[in-house]
Amino acid sequence: MKILQVFSLISTLLATSQVPDLHIPNQIHLHRPDLHIYNQIHFLRPLSGSRGHDIPGVSCSSWRLAVETNNIIGWTKVPEECANYVGHYMLGQHYRDDSKVVTDAALDHAKSMNLTGDGKDIWVFDVDETTLSNLPYYATNGFGSTAYNSTSFNAPALPESLKLYKSLLSLGIKVVFLTGRTEDQRNVTVANLKEVGYYTWEKVILKNSTYYSGSTAVVYKSKERKKLEENGYRIIGNMGDQWSDLLGTNSGNRTFKLPDPMYYIS
Amino acid sequence: MKILQVFSLISTLLATSQVPDLHIPNQIHLHRPDLHIYNQIHFLRPLSGSRGHDIPGVSCSSWRLAVETNNIIGWTKVPEECANYVGHYMLGQHYRDDSKVVTDAALDHAKSMNLTGDGKDIWVFDVDETTLSNLPYYATNGFGSTAYNSTSFNAPALPESLKLYKSLLSLGIKVVFLTGRTEDQRNVTVANLKEVGYYTWEKVILKNSTYYSGSTAVVYKSKERKKLEENGYRIIGNMGDQWSDLLGTNSGNRTFKLPDPMYYIS
Repeated sequence: MKILQVFSLISTLLATSQVPDLHIPNQIHLHRPDLHIYNQIHFLRPLSGSRGHDIPGVSCSSWRLAVETNNIIGWTKVPEECANYVGHYMLGQHYRDDSKVVTDAALDHAKSMNLTGDGKDIWVFDVDETTLSNLPYYATNGFGSTAYNSTSFNAPALPESLKLYKSLLSLGIKVVFLTGRTEDQRNVTVANLKEVGYYTWEKVILKNSTYYSGSTAVVYKSKERKKLEENGYRIIGNMGDQWSDLLGTNSGNRTFKLPDPMYYIS
Repeated sequence: MKILQVFSLISTLLATSQVPDLHIPNQIHLHRPDLHIYNQIHFLRPLSGSRGHDIPGVSCSSWRLAVETNNIIGWTKVPEECANYVGHYMLGQHYRDDSKVVTDAALDHAKSMNLTGDGKDIWVFDVDETTLSNLPYYATNGFGSTAYNSTSFNAPALPESLKLYKSLLSLGIKVVFLTGRTEDQRNVTVANLKEVGYYTWEKVILKNSTYYSGSTAVVYKSKERKKLEENGYRIIGNMGDQWSDLLGTNSGNRTFKLPDPMYYIS
């Protein structure tokens, strides 16, 4: 299992954290098992009076907007000068607020659809940073090059996503989880989803060995969505934190991009 | 010619404006000749101490992010509670900074391409709020239901877009303007582009009558890009302020979404 992205924060971020009882060590390291890139650990600069919100010629707010709109792509780490800004964003209310607007729009969309009730209406969710949040793991287990060990960690649900999930089920929409996690992580992933409240689903699709030789997430996920549609499912909505969850083919009736300024998957 | 979108500000916004010598009347009205919707004039609420940044349950910052990421679509006006926020954004440095990050990313992309120098590499630009800015017009001519009169107005160039345009030309990339403005506006559009510094191009494509009967911008622009590719052009980049400039088919090697929280075109 390879480390995919490393993202550091410093413990003083706790001062503004909305995550209760979260012990944050000196560095938080972000691992993603489904990327085959190892990035250098990104040490945060010391806190300054300006809270490090600016990099020369560009504000971190503008950088984040460009990332979220898919204007800046292929990046391997948060710009050093924006690490603190991103940390505050992720641990504070802003990330949650931004997520809520997206899940609210998604629910409005789902409610507007003419659902047939034949059990073929589905919603496709990505897993990491879409339905489950790995942030507490990185806060408490992140020590540089230690590999992500999902067997020892239960990721909490993203609160707004879990609410959306329950609302979608109540509308009669079935849920498919489509994740870049690999097939060998099926048991732990399924157990994690159940434990935090995602108690039922139509399918959990993990990356199998046919995709291991260099398929991007766009290719893998497009092919799997195509299979779903070939099996008669109608993708009412498709939600992920990466544009690679949403672009490509068979994207569904509408796509919804949750915020994630921490890492990029192509 | 129909009014498409109305957006109001109040004159006190001038206090933070970066636009020099801009007299802003009590209401700024945004007209777009290429949309066939009339929206009610949107009166701004009185300024409050909080500068009106919040609407119940959602911050205007989150609303704007959701708009820019295409999560909130089909909207016909800025939420009343966010009009002041959007006004400050557009007239202040934030809009310009956000635009610069996008055009910088676009130039980086263009420079990274293997250009053949055969004159077939093109860059597709939308016009309104992409290469030309109508904001000063709305500021000085917007009086409710008065129709947009482009024969009497020269829109200034968006500064960062004009810089990008010049850089692209210097790389040997040709420029195609693809706009939802209609064919009867060709002369005034061409004159305006030239006057503000867009002095050369390969084509200016305006909407002709074959598209009048209900074609969306996505359909119209996709078909016109397809024609370009059928004629041997390679679309190196495609830039617009609306997702309808960028989605659909034949979108180009990369797309770039400039900010526009003022109106939505499908």
